[in-house]
Amino acid sequence: MSTAWTSRYALRTKGIKSSAIRELLKITQRSEVISFAGGLPAPEVFPIQRFEEACHRVLEQNGASALQYGATEGYEPLREMIARNMARYGILAKVENVMITSGSQQALDLIGKLLINTGDRVLVEGPTYLGALQAFNVYGAEYVSVPIDDDGLRTDLLEKSLRSGPKFMYILPNFQNPAGTTLSEGRRHELVLMADKYGIPIIEDDPYGQLRYEGDHLTPLVVLDRENLRRDNGYSLGNVIYLSTFSKTLAPGLRLGWIVAPPEIISKLVQLKQGADLHTSTFNQFVAYEVARDGFLDQHIKLIRQVYRERRDVMLQALDEFFPPEVTWTHPKGGLFLWVTLPEGVDCHELFQRALKENVAFVTGDSFYADNSHEGGRHMRLNFSNANREQIREGIRRLSVAVKDQIEQLHLTLAGADV
Amino acid sequence: MSTAWTSRYALRTKGIKSSAIRELLKITQRSEVISFAGGLPAPEVFPIQRFEEACHRVLEQNGASALQYGATEGYEPLREMIARNMARYGILAKVENVMITSGSQQALDLIGKLLINTGDRVLVEGPTYLGALQAFNVYGAEYVSVPIDDDGLRTDLLEKSLRSGPKFMYILPNFQNPAGTTLSEGRRHELVLMADKYGIPIIEDDPYGQLRYEGDHLTPLVVLDRENLRRDNGYSLGNVIYLSTFSKTLAPGLRLGWIVAPPEIISKLVQLKQGADLHTSTFNQFVAYEVARDGFLDQHIKLIRQVYRERRDVMLQALDEFFPPEVTWTHPKGGLFLWVTLPEGVDCHELFQRALKENVAFVTGDSFYADNSHEGGRHMRLNFSNANREQIREGIRRLSVAVKDQIEQLHLTLAGADV
Repeated sequence: MSTAWTSRYALRTKGIKSSAIRELLKITQRSEVISFAGGLPAPEVFPIQRFEEACHRVLEQNGASALQYGATEGYEPLREMIARNMARYGILAKVENVMITSGSQQALDLIGKLLINTGDRVLVEGPTYLGALQAFNVYGAEYVSVPIDDDGLRTDLLEKSLRSGPKFMYILPNFQNPAGTTLSEGRRHELVLMADKYGIPIIEDDPYGQLRYEGDHLTPLVVLDRENLRRDNGYSLGNVIYLSTFSKTLAPGLRLGWIVAPPEIISKLVQLKQGADLHTSTFNQFVAYEVARDGFLDQHIKLIRQVYRERRDVMLQALDEFFPPEVTWTHPKGGLFLWVTLPEGVDCHELFQRALKENVAFVTGDSFYADNSHEGGRHMRLNFSNANREQIREGIRRLSVAVKDQIEQLHLTLAGADV
Repeated sequence: MSTAWTSRYALRTKGIKSSAIRELLKITQRSEVISFAGGLPAPEVFPIQRFEEACHRVLEQNGASALQYGATEGYEPLREMIARNMARYGILAKVENVMITSGSQQALDLIGKLLINTGDRVLVEGPTYLGALQAFNVYGAEYVSVPIDDDGLRTDLLEKSLRSGPKFMYILPNFQNPAGTTLSEGRRHELVLMADKYGIPIIEDDPYGQLRYEGDHLTPLVVLDRENLRRDNGYSLGNVIYLSTFSKTLAPGLRLGWIVAPPEIISKLVQLKQGADLHTSTFNQFVAYEVARDGFLDQHIKLIRQVYRERRDVMLQALDEFFPPEVTWTHPKGGLFLWVTLPEGVDCHELFQRALKENVAFVTGDSFYADNSHEGGRHMRLNFSNANREQIREGIRRLSVAVKDQIEQLHLTLAGADV
């Protein structure tokens, strides 16, 4: 190979390493392994028949437009539909506030591109979504990590971190990835007020908000920001950029997400998107609109909620039944994940290797911490959306064998150290 | 609006302005305007029926996989098909050398991300593809611009620019956008040897290579690099990264392009793509594979060549018939564009305004120069793929009225100055 490439990489790629999850997924794709490692929707609920009809109609009626280049901000009827749907949650966006992205991941990349200079700090939850860290790392982000508990971000610990001047906060308020926790209504108010006080914008990432299995929907930060701070512009033009996606409600294979932001920000992001991929697939936007329209998406989300709620319940029940008492876990009210905390001293990487011998897989908790703290070492993320009831029960049983074994090892080591 | 956002933008977005073409396209979309401004394929040749069948088959047979998350490097059967197709042009890539991108534009973004530090110089043709400048600008690129003539890049002027140490060269060898010119075989050899001598890699952007309407296919730079320099690895692992796309042969609305590069580079680009959009639409990759397979793509490209050749010929004939003798233009052997040179002193922006009064549009030449030289001021880019024969003839007639008018104005001004 020519040496021309070596030493030519830009500084920003120095820290890039392949995602731990990505590598793990390869190992765990053997058919005998029950995997709780990914974050994949259940393919059984993809509305394939509806997609067929939609493709047919789009090509029949609008083939020439659907296959042609399109506007960078996205297909207008789809943006209008998104604005209408969000209004139910109090997010009063106009079509100018909505742009389509190539999955929510692209929204994170564009936001990193727009806002992060090398060395800028981003305030994140500990733990937080790994893909956001990957997107922001490229632009030289550094991090301030604020712990979470069962009620989400510890707002009581927030003010000190805000004083250190982060460029923005990145927050997952609903059924957070990886922990499955939800930011309480009270803390939402505190967060939004504090963000305003210190002039620190919030990126509100909400891929799972519609997948709630119990309890009432809580107010999005973008809405609280407008209401609490009595912004007079009538729609979401405040301190919060809101992100969501069709990946968890329709199909991730479409790569369709969206951003809600003030028009000035949308205009900048559109310019950046133009250089990044010109626009998101016109065809997929037409098809998604055709699939979702006439109330189908709402009906379909009800089905997904039912399936995932059941799977979550099976997992919680199996954990109760099989896991030893010194292990705890979150009880997510929605989303795809729960978060297990092991006794101090258990190393989740050793546990992972041990679990693979039992043909069961998960993601080790350390991947989700921005600050390389050792906090992650005793956690595991379990996904409950992609395996069926029998697999979930059997997988948790297998995992409990590995967990008990590791805990026993730990006790033996501690006992040995006592001598 | 909150002031939290203002002054938060990253340095890299300082120079970002909305693409001139994008803004122009809005003006020129009135139905009475005949537009030669865009670079859109002819929607009449989209194989809509074949797309319908492909969507049906993909969803019927592989719905669950096609709608699910997929591998960042792309759908393997599609990558294999691309490798097979390219072998006909001598590009001996293995599947590991090929990654799918969300359009060729994303390839440019990822390459900018990988290679450009703020202030790095990129060697480009003058004129060059505007979208590449947009992609590279974000990463703080500066430019060395080398002029082209009817045989493409002036390799006789190259060495001095190479000595100034550009990070890489960005070259469009076939039916270049905007000029329609093709790099001659002799200059290809010179370019590749010089790139090796100075250790400067080449990005070979080839969106139009398969759309040749006359003459023989010329050897891609990525092949010459391997052959001339006797690289012993058997496939394209040298000094050249090669880019192409399905946008001009199947449909731009799919947003499917690809990169051919050494595995080490692919691995880095895959990591960057993961942070940028996780992967390109699985569904579209399955559909494109299903549309293209069994020789359909080859047949379809023959049809496109026939339609576009005819349109090019109509435009060349109309230019001969209507345009005054002091105006010249390129005779592209393929692609979508030709490039008109006006007499010195004619301002293409004034001409553009004048042409709009005649209800005809084009893109002013200055948009395509990296170095803000005044060279672009007397050029216009004309697209011949998106209008039918009658529109092309009538559009060129209208444009000739504006051109003659501007030239006359110029003569009057010069005469006045003589007094």
